[in-house]
Amino acid sequence: MVLAFKKYYNIERMFGMIKAGIMGATGYAGQQLAWLLLNHPEVEISFLSTNSYEDEAFSSIYKNYYGVADYTCVSTKTAFEMLGDIDVLFCSLPHGKSMDAVKAAYDKGIKVIDLSADYRIGSKDTYSEWYELEHSYPFLLEKAVYGLPELHRDSIKNARIIANPGCYPTSVILALAPLLKNGLIDKSSIIADSKSGVSGAGRSADISNIYTEVNESIKAYKLGSHRHTPEIEQELSKLGGENIVISFTPHLIPMNRGILSTCYATLNGSHEKSDIMKLYKDFYKDEFFVKVIDGVPETRWVKSSNFCHIGFSVDKRTGRIVVVSAIDNLMKGAASQAVQNMNIIFGIDEKTGINFAPTFP
Amino acid sequence: MVLAFKKYYNIERMFGMIKAGIMGATGYAGQQLAWLLLNHPEVEISFLSTNSYEDEAFSSIYKNYYGVADYTCVSTKTAFEMLGDIDVLFCSLPHGKSMDAVKAAYDKGIKVIDLSADYRIGSKDTYSEWYELEHSYPFLLEKAVYGLPELHRDSIKNARIIANPGCYPTSVILALAPLLKNGLIDKSSIIADSKSGVSGAGRSADISNIYTEVNESIKAYKLGSHRHTPEIEQELSKLGGENIVISFTPHLIPMNRGILSTCYATLNGSHEKSDIMKLYKDFYKDEFFVKVIDGVPETRWVKSSNFCHIGFSVDKRTGRIVVVSAIDNLMKGAASQAVQNMNIIFGIDEKTGINFAPTFP
Amino acid sequence: MVLAFKKYYNIERMFGMIKAGIMGATGYAGQQLAWLLLNHPEVEISFLSTNSYEDEAFSSIYKNYYGVADYTCVSTKTAFEMLGDIDVLFCSLPHGKSMDAVKAAYDKGIKVIDLSADYRIGSKDTYSEWYELEHSYPFLLEKAVYGLPELHRDSIKNARIIANPGCYPTSVILALAPLLKNGLIDKSSIIADSKSGVSGAGRSADISNIYTEVNESIKAYKLGSHRHTPEIEQELSKLGGENIVISFTPHLIPMNRGILSTCYATLNGSHEKSDIMKLYKDFYKDEFFVKVIDGVPETRWVKSSNFCHIGFSVDKRTGRIVVVSAIDNLMKGAASQAVQNMNIIFGIDEKTGINFAPTFP
Amino acid sequence: MVLAFKKYYNIERMFGMIKAGIMGATGYAGQQLAWLLLNHPEVEISFLSTNSYEDEAFSSIYKNYYGVADYTCVSTKTAFEMLGDIDVLFCSLPHGKSMDAVKAAYDKGIKVIDLSADYRIGSKDTYSEWYELEHSYPFLLEKAVYGLPELHRDSIKNARIIANPGCYPTSVILALAPLLKNGLIDKSSIIADSKSGVSGAGRSADISNIYTEVNESIKAYKLGSHRHTPEIEQELSKLGGENIVISFTPHLIPMNRGILSTCYATLNGSHEKSDIMKLYKDFYKDEFFVKVIDGVPETRWVKSSNFCHIGFSVDKRTGRIVVVSAIDNLMKGAASQAVQNMNIIFGIDEKTGINFAPTFP
Repeated sequence: MVLAFKKYYNIERMFGMIKAGIMGATGYAGQQLAWLLLNHPEVEISFLSTNSYEDEAFSSIYKNYYGVADYTCVSTKTAFEMLGDIDVLFCSLPHGKSMDAVKAAYDKGIKVIDLSADYRIGSKDTYSEWYELEHSYPFLLEKAVYGLPELHRDSIKNARIIANPGCYPTSVILALAPLLKNGLIDKSSIIADSKSGVSGAGRSADISNIYTEVNESIKAYKLGSHRHTPEIEQELSKLGGENIVISFTPHLIPMNRGILSTCYATLNGSHEKSDIMKLYKDFYKDEFFVKVIDGVPETRWVKSSNFCHIGFSVDKRTGRIVVVSAIDNLMKGAASQAVQNMNIIFGIDEKTGINFAPTFP
Repeated sequence: MVLAFKKYYNIERMFGMIKAGIMGATGYAGQQLAWLLLNHPEVEISFLSTNSYEDEAFSSIYKNYYGVADYTCVSTKTAFEMLGDIDVLFCSLPHGKSMDAVKAAYDKGIKVIDLSADYRIGSKDTYSEWYELEHSYPFLLEKAVYGLPELHRDSIKNARIIANPGCYPTSVILALAPLLKNGLIDKSSIIADSKSGVSGAGRSADISNIYTEVNESIKAYKLGSHRHTPEIEQELSKLGGENIVISFTPHLIPMNRGILSTCYATLNGSHEKSDIMKLYKDFYKDEFFVKVIDGVPETRWVKSSNFCHIGFSVDKRTGRIVVVSAIDNLMKGAASQAVQNMNIIFGIDEKTGINFAPTFP
Repeated sequence: MVLAFKKYYNIERMFGMIKAGIMGATGYAGQQLAWLLLNHPEVEISFLSTNSYEDEAFSSIYKNYYGVADYTCVSTKTAFEMLGDIDVLFCSLPHGKSMDAVKAAYDKGIKVIDLSADYRIGSKDTYSEWYELEHSYPFLLEKAVYGLPELHRDSIKNARIIANPGCYPTSVILALAPLLKNGLIDKSSIIADSKSGVSGAGRSADISNIYTEVNESIKAYKLGSHRHTPEIEQELSKLGGENIVISFTPHLIPMNRGILSTCYATLNGSHEKSDIMKLYKDFYKDEFFVKVIDGVPETRWVKSSNFCHIGFSVDKRTGRIVVVSAIDNLMKGAASQAVQNMNIIFGIDEKTGINFAPTFP
Repeated sequence: MVLAFKKYYNIERMFGMIKAGIMGATGYAGQQLAWLLLNHPEVEISFLSTNSYEDEAFSSIYKNYYGVADYTCVSTKTAFEMLGDIDVLFCSLPHGKSMDAVKAAYDKGIKVIDLSADYRIGSKDTYSEWYELEHSYPFLLEKAVYGLPELHRDSIKNARIIANPGCYPTSVILALAPLLKNGLIDKSSIIADSKSGVSGAGRSADISNIYTEVNESIKAYKLGSHRHTPEIEQELSKLGGENIVISFTPHLIPMNRGILSTCYATLNGSHEKSDIMKLYKDFYKDEFFVKVIDGVPETRWVKSSNFCHIGFSVDKRTGRIVVVSAIDNLMKGAASQAVQNMNIIFGIDEKTGINFAPTFP
């Protein structure tokens, strides 16, 4: 059974629905993706696969689907066998595990949107260094396109492998892109201080994740060593036209969803806020999902949506600009961005199925 | 500007979109309703009115609509003047204030869905007693239909005034209806212990509502005196066929959304759980939005949706049944139920615009 | 190293400090107990034992003790060997595991305060039925005193084994004791609806305990089958002078600490609130830690303390009384009550080391 | 009535208790201070004054004191009249309002510990610029000592006016002091990104403070313009020996208590982590309340205590050091630091009354 409101849709579509499979559907990002695809007018879900819950009803794992979505989770192995029946694979397996699935789908000629990190880093050496494992298919890295539509839409259109961006990188790259593209900042001065809700830590049973350990507390973690660092640097370097190294500090805060990134950089010379605002508005003028605002972003205003809010302040005392961006880590930071990429690849309206306002409160 | 995914819809609709106005759109329920109507394929919003934010952009009050929904809030007075231009009025004013708006809309021949309590209580005396004010239009009370579709769908179809149920009553009535309808319980034994998220307290600046006073605490309030009591009793009495008096205790707990009601009653004689389960499943077999589950409901599984989950336990030691129901107070307890009522009134698919799974986490 | 403010104390004590050991010190209750004993002027901690963290520094498991309390956790086995060196054992092992430790301490002539359920139920058959295991030392059950000082202070004074009450039972028994003692209620009509913070679920890695699964949700659990039920019934039966069976429903709510119990009973005849208030105030007039209040209790006002707040409402419409009590589940519901018991046993001021106001916010 | 455990104390004290008054006792910092003084063995509280709750029982405003502390709040005016009866005034009024109270106490020869910002900034011009009002007693500014004991203990001993540090400044200054004192960093490179719990916003009814607006969200605010900036810069400049300007960004996160500050600076040359660790440990080796840890601080480990945890990472890729500090904003960031200052002034053990481990969870 699929959600009944689908009947309103897909009249225009001549060639039938897009058949999609999700590998790793029982993690938080995979589950969010399933929610979106259930509501997507041009998609039908072919399978939901899992490493932990084989043969269980999806709606018994996530009871929000009780009586709404009737799927039995298949094993990853079965999912491999079903690749021939789908048009697009969303791969939400852990890094290291995702490589093979992407390769298999690629070999079958299926479009793949990989939510893991396995194809995000163009350099196999950088990948090995930060992820501490060898890439099995380095020759595929150049086939993969970094799936941030606001920066790489044209490449995404024809890509066969999409490396869907990480949650922190999405927030930081969108915040800084206009500055780097326009050469406004000292490229060695970038610091990104990011704060994430707890769903970013995944659905794993670990004492450090239990309610009483996380609630009423904040922590920084992986100082100078988080694996999203090279991903951010790669994209900022492309924008800046030279090799960029940054300080990146992730934090965990007691809320379910959302990332706020506070980014610092030294301005090259004196700039008025109004001029930089114009530049930001221009940069994102055609981007429906990125909103440059006059105030300071808060994650509550982008919750459960594909939107990114960006605001900034110019501090003449220090010569720095402080740019703040807010996204929902499971949406623009994962699942809804994956759908955005799928829409682009399949040539349908980019907003299809993700075109709703954030939910509040 | 409206959300672009609407273009997929409304092909079937011959007479154009339903024009809707929301009075009291800047409260939490009103705002949630606006969100739903923005995404509803058969509705266009004619106005959003407010008592506090006249002439301000809706998206400056609720920044989740920034760049997504472009409305300027009008005053309540202006809204009255615009009644002639709409097909349906959603009235989300405080009780006491809502009466006049409903009357005005009624007089204009417009359908009204009133989210306040003003037309829920059939007896003007009971209304006066619990709400401590006189009803200005007692003759209209009999025109109003209590808008719980699962119980009153047929009456709703032809109603001109819908009294949209309160949040607590929705959760308690749905939990107990099958028992009363089938005469399974001692009607004098009913106790409803309900727990609500904080959005139920509304968006008002009051020290007892501020974060640090609510967080990390739970309280009961209005013991034996909450105004939803007569509303629950009225509907349970209809179901039970005689006058029913209950104990009802509301609690406030530190979360944004959701109501869990734990309802106790003494069973008339000995009953097996399986028999009662069959009875519940039968009672709700045609109700898409009410799910009778084998386990115990949790509010996380109905969040941001129109669903109600119901589970129960038969305790042979005490001879009691304990029924637990979970809803989202702003959705099935307010805004999405209002949309469900509108759909019924306008003869469109009851699930239109509210047919999506709960969001998690 | 112990906390330096101890130097102010213990001048009056002639025979030196009370030497205490804690078995199961790395659970939440055990840790809270360690905190209290560290600050207790008449106690020195001899050992902290653990099942999971043998030979680790206590301050590496709970970093709030970093540089403040310098203990290396010992194994349970080592703790058994050290029983000869202590005056009192606090046993915070899981039920089933605690039996042996209590027996061993008893045999050594050491006072034992058992925070598990193993010695709370006087009937070995009832214990077996609810806990699904046989009691190894049924002959010791009659030696154990149920450690609720407000009801059993005299017996506690000379007890060698204290069964420290469960968190839910403490809140429910204190709420209802005055009514039962005075024969004011129908003994078959009692319903206790309790809501607990998450620390009550212990410090165990389980998906149902992780932040994102608990936050923004409420659930009921173990309907009619929670193991605290026979414990509550036993004590209420003693108070009421006959066998009492109740409905008890526990709930989990998103906060770290606190229990609120909402208790319902049918009054025998008509009673004024003022009369019952007098009766409650009389009943607890010598009890420093139980406060009968005019309003409705909230857990925020008892947080991190040994206090219990009780308030109630008489509902003439239904003939019922609704009594609400609030405690901190880790304090009056576990650790500070254990200290209160210890103080009584050792003949020192009952408030010693637990005589501080709740902390807010 | 005062807390009974006081009887254990004050045997050594020959000249009686220190008589203390609190102005602004009904704010969060004032209330926390009252809690501490109630438990302080050498202090008796002479008055609690308030602007909003004159003649109300303190325990009716903060019900955690019900039956524990029996004070009637007096007006600020009355408090002025009672200055002659006390030994020390704690002034927790808003900035601008505090000036006069401090002056009056000073004129009476009473020691004053001012928790407002009025005497923190040595330069009246800087004060005017950031606080947008003139200082009425600029000649008193040089009498005031900045009450951060770890840096200014000797001056505090003989001070008559203590400017008790702000919460954010305490966390940032302690984090960076060892680096600046030892000349290890580029003084123009300092960025402090701080995250605070909501009690820092005070106890005021404002829509932006209510639960549903704060919960499940994070925001940055006052980018480059928060009033704690000049206070931090003043103290860092003293440490660095020259004028220092920093970027400071405060954030609000959904928890009651705690501040985490993540501080960035460029190292002068290459330094090993172990060398800098030695330097930090040396710097704070005599400081009981500052703990330099090997890992990364989390606010849960310092909650409800006077402790500050500091950890750091050296990032060779960027040449930066990232220092993270955690405090409880109401304790080391306000009330317990005020008590620490009082202890120093009155020549008693600095840890008196604040010498307890953080509470968890």
